[in-house]
Amino acid sequence: MKLNLLATGFLLSALSSFSLMPGQAADAPLALVIHGGAGTLEKAKMTPAKRQAYETDLKQALNAGYGVLKQGGSSLDAVEASVRVLEDSPLFNAGKGSVFTADGSHELDAAIMDGRSLAAGAVANLKHIRNPISLARAVMEKSPHVMMTGAGAEEFALQQGFELVPTSYFDTQEKWELLQEVKAEESKPKVRGTVGAVALDRAGNLAAATSTGGMTNKRFGRVGDSPIIGAGTYANNQTCAVSATGHGEYFIRAVVGHDISSLMAYGKLPLKAAAEEVVMKKLKQMGGEGGIISVDRQGNIATPFNSEGMYRGWVDRSGKLEVKIYVE
Amino acid sequence: MKLNLLATGFLLSALSSFSLMPGQAADAPLALVIHGGAGTLEKAKMTPAKRQAYETDLKQALNAGYGVLKQGGSSLDAVEASVRVLEDSPLFNAGKGSVFTADGSHELDAAIMDGRSLAAGAVANLKHIRNPISLARAVMEKSPHVMMTGAGAEEFALQQGFELVPTSYFDTQEKWELLQEVKAEESKPKVRGTVGAVALDRAGNLAAATSTGGMTNKRFGRVGDSPIIGAGTYANNQTCAVSATGHGEYFIRAVVGHDISSLMAYGKLPLKAAAEEVVMKKLKQMGGEGGIISVDRQGNIATPFNSEGMYRGWVDRSGKLEVKIYVE
Repeated sequence: MKLNLLATGFLLSALSSFSLMPGQAADAPLALVIHGGAGTLEKAKMTPAKRQAYETDLKQALNAGYGVLKQGGSSLDAVEASVRVLEDSPLFNAGKGSVFTADGSHELDAAIMDGRSLAAGAVANLKHIRNPISLARAVMEKSPHVMMTGAGAEEFALQQGFELVPTSYFDTQEKWELLQEVKAEESKPKVRGTVGAVALDRAGNLAAATSTGGMTNKRFGRVGDSPIIGAGTYANNQTCAVSATGHGEYFIRAVVGHDISSLMAYGKLPLKAAAEEVVMKKLKQMGGEGGIISVDRQGNIATPFNSEGMYRGWVDRSGKLEVKIYVE
Repeated sequence: MKLNLLATGFLLSALSSFSLMPGQAADAPLALVIHGGAGTLEKAKMTPAKRQAYETDLKQALNAGYGVLKQGGSSLDAVEASVRVLEDSPLFNAGKGSVFTADGSHELDAAIMDGRSLAAGAVANLKHIRNPISLARAVMEKSPHVMMTGAGAEEFALQQGFELVPTSYFDTQEKWELLQEVKAEESKPKVRGTVGAVALDRAGNLAAATSTGGMTNKRFGRVGDSPIIGAGTYANNQTCAVSATGHGEYFIRAVVGHDISSLMAYGKLPLKAAAEEVVMKKLKQMGGEGGIISVDRQGNIATPFNSEGMYRGWVDRSGKLEVKIYVE
């Protein structure tokens, strides 16, 4: 995908030196929102040094995606760029920082969706793909399928020129210690996490992307909500783009992304009210802990969460960049 | 699961000899709808003998599920019972009659959902489970997860006392010939199929179940819409129960089951209008061929399809049993 990204960058530069695309207006709003998961460190354990490390990587991810948008690039390119930065960071539970499965391995899931065409791509149970979000995009654009899993998905990756990495690439000391802790106290809630991005581009198109390393100590080829279109990842130009993070089983049962979209489309709620209805009322009543990030076509942003914290950040339509961790 | 079914049967007999459960009324409506897939034989190739064989198995599936409902059993038990009959029939693309993958094997997916609690279970990429719908139910009831795939799902099955069968159990001459045909003409649309059931029980609870052998000649661990909660399978007591069949990629992107539910919940459409809006308008505009079966809490039934045919049948709230294949 490095070549693809370079090619895309080249194309974007070429375009921006000419004129705007049809449907684009120089003053049309841009917006980008990212998250690094609802499974934050307990507030009491967050040292200033750790906070700075998280904030630095969140800002880097925002800058990567917003750079694409400012150049007139697509929301799809922007969310992929942001998520790749978060996947490459060892701090978040996706890509490099993925948690360990029960057998000391890693299984990664991701999905991406284009709000313009409702095209979507999803991958699950990957073991050797450095940037799952880029493979999800290849599934969307280069295959007739929406969802591919396991060895089959990696066979497709090889055919598409992806380089496979040894599973040990995803090992980090911190996540190894987490596995030992979770194994020692089976009753302790398993720490969860996800990364994601949603964006609105100059042409008015929405996109959503989510990537995760799953649950610490998971067994059984479990798949969470991240790669489920309509649950953890959803984008539709008629309504909004959503990326979720939290206790995936509840997010699947509540079809979180599509429910927020439907409350806007059919219930005529604005984004913020729809997102809060689902996260702060419906999910909470079910017992589903976590949150979502979302953006609509006017560049309105909503990031409700019912957990202690959610690593998150945005560049809003005024161009202001912010990163946050807890309710603050 | 044989033991479970026997135990359930025993419990039901015990209950029915006492009184009705709270919330049950002797005159409350019952309804059951099943499908055997939108990938029907071309009408011109449907001989009277073949039609009779399909109709016989559809009726057997209806009788199995309706028997449960009449005894005061749950909609969950009813849809599982109907789908097991369709899985055991060699005629439909699920269980015994599953199509072949590109490498001459089989991969089976299934999902089940309880409209009362929004509990759900889904399995994908199974190779050795005779009745995937019963494993989906075990995932829902006996695991903390909603979705499990591949070898991990089969490990869980063994722990739950399921017997594994050799993949060759799913071989049938007819589906083998289909694989050779599809391989010979790569451009020919791959024949698809699915089975499913939705039901309303005496207590007013809805349930949905779907099971499939996937696409003939499929590669890459592809997952279709059947095991995706909200897409191919969805049930919610507030609205309806839906099981879908068709070109799964479009059904995932359109979040078909949850969209019908949302048009009822937020758009205030009745079941029939909501189902037709999604299948005959939205899906058709996208190019998504197939159909759905659905039932609401009043026992209204809708079975729209935009393909040539859809194997289907129902027992409506007046107790009338019908089976159909084409638009007729």
